[in-house]
Amino acid sequence: MANSASGESIIGRFVKIVSAFDDSHPSMSVAELGRRTGLPVTTAYRLVNDLLLERLLDREPDGNVHIGTRMWELVSRGSKMVGLREAALPFMEDVQAVVQHSTTLGILDSDEVLYIERIGSHSTIVDITKIAGRLPLHATSSGLVLLANATPEYQESALARPLAKFTETTLTDPPQLRRHLAEIRQRGYAVMPGVIVKESSGIAVPVYGPDNTVVAALSVVVPRNEENVPARVPVLMASARGISRALGWRGELKGALRQSR
Amino acid sequence: MANSASGESIIGRFVKIVSAFDDSHPSMSVAELGRRTGLPVTTAYRLVNDLLLERLLDREPDGNVHIGTRMWELVSRGSKMVGLREAALPFMEDVQAVVQHSTTLGILDSDEVLYIERIGSHSTIVDITKIAGRLPLHATSSGLVLLANATPEYQESALARPLAKFTETTLTDPPQLRRHLAEIRQRGYAVMPGVIVKESSGIAVPVYGPDNTVVAALSVVVPRNEENVPARVPVLMASARGISRALGWRGELKGALRQSR
Repeated sequence: MANSASGESIIGRFVKIVSAFDDSHPSMSVAELGRRTGLPVTTAYRLVNDLLLERLLDREPDGNVHIGTRMWELVSRGSKMVGLREAALPFMEDVQAVVQHSTTLGILDSDEVLYIERIGSHSTIVDITKIAGRLPLHATSSGLVLLANATPEYQESALARPLAKFTETTLTDPPQLRRHLAEIRQRGYAVMPGVIVKESSGIAVPVYGPDNTVVAALSVVVPRNEENVPARVPVLMASARGISRALGWRGELKGALRQSR
Repeated sequence: MANSASGESIIGRFVKIVSAFDDSHPSMSVAELGRRTGLPVTTAYRLVNDLLLERLLDREPDGNVHIGTRMWELVSRGSKMVGLREAALPFMEDVQAVVQHSTTLGILDSDEVLYIERIGSHSTIVDITKIAGRLPLHATSSGLVLLANATPEYQESALARPLAKFTETTLTDPPQLRRHLAEIRQRGYAVMPGVIVKESSGIAVPVYGPDNTVVAALSVVVPRNEENVPARVPVLMASARGISRALGWRGELKGALRQSR
């Protein structure tokens, strides 16, 4: 509907505009938006104007624009992500209080781990996870837990792609990864020492939703060689069960994620 | 640009669609979306189709649609709200650990408090704050702290509107509120016993940004008659200073919120 001469929908252009903003570019001029999106400046101006009218973008005193408070509010209020992270947050705080290192919650999205929550110490160890950030499945403890609990077809298609080697401990050999996934699935957790950055290790466990499928991975990032697996895995497992229960999981309960919230 | 016969922009319709989803309606059929938004069903179908193509909405196995993971991700990655809440979260956890009751972070938006973060105990007292929820300025401790630090013109326009009386302790008389705001501004905190729900009290302090303006209110919601103000206000004040520092506040530093992150 309402396509431009180039066949691109207004919604497609809207996505380009929103995607132009990130951590390093939280606000910019409309001219810069045009450059970053590749949209003609007049097109960018008209669309930005519509977005300002609806408060999906906000304008700063210097004329730069940024993602509007209303956009954040609308999406947060309606998104299932927020339900999952609200259910998880008290349990993540418990893990954080006991383990004293960053705690993350990740989901499987578009063949990557998407971190939907992260809580950390004021100053923390080398930890490259961030909220709304993505990392490769094969090189993170959360990713491997999510992949281990995906369907065999999904696993095979993930292992068929090129797998980057980040450190000497990153597994990139499909047969080796396949064996590792079977192990993770069987014992119920993943411990990955220095697979994406040398100095840190990830420990992750699955979080089940009401229909007994894995909906997320709960993990901690700790200094390498201080994994203390026998102490930390039980903390993560107990908290993951708490999150599952808060989501409506009763072992036998079936139904949608939000039904029992 | 690309307005319909009724003069409504695609972006305006997009806002209607996104606004249809909330806590109680996290997913729905396109027909229900049509009813909730007032859009003709054919218009709703076409727009939903564009949104599904861009993954701004996701479709469930039963055909219902919900706010897409990608929409949450794009907005979270680019939004300044996320920077503020990430800076605040470790300090909110400290408050939560010490006070053991829900801790919230609210900003002033469209003449209301918009709560951008909330952490609570697993089971908590009567507390109607929620993430991406709004409450009236005059009936919450956070709202009064934000209003107390707004410009005199803003205060007057806020006090000129009809002010709802929620409980017997809600202040609704403008001269009385004006005196109360002056007090809050001078002593640096607000304590509001049972002003919006009888059973709970709010205690709030301001959070300063790099340019020494108040950017948020940090608050705890505690059982009524267990306010323990002499112990709790210092905890909130110390944590609010920590958040301000994390935002780049140095007492004298000037500049945009994100400059020194």
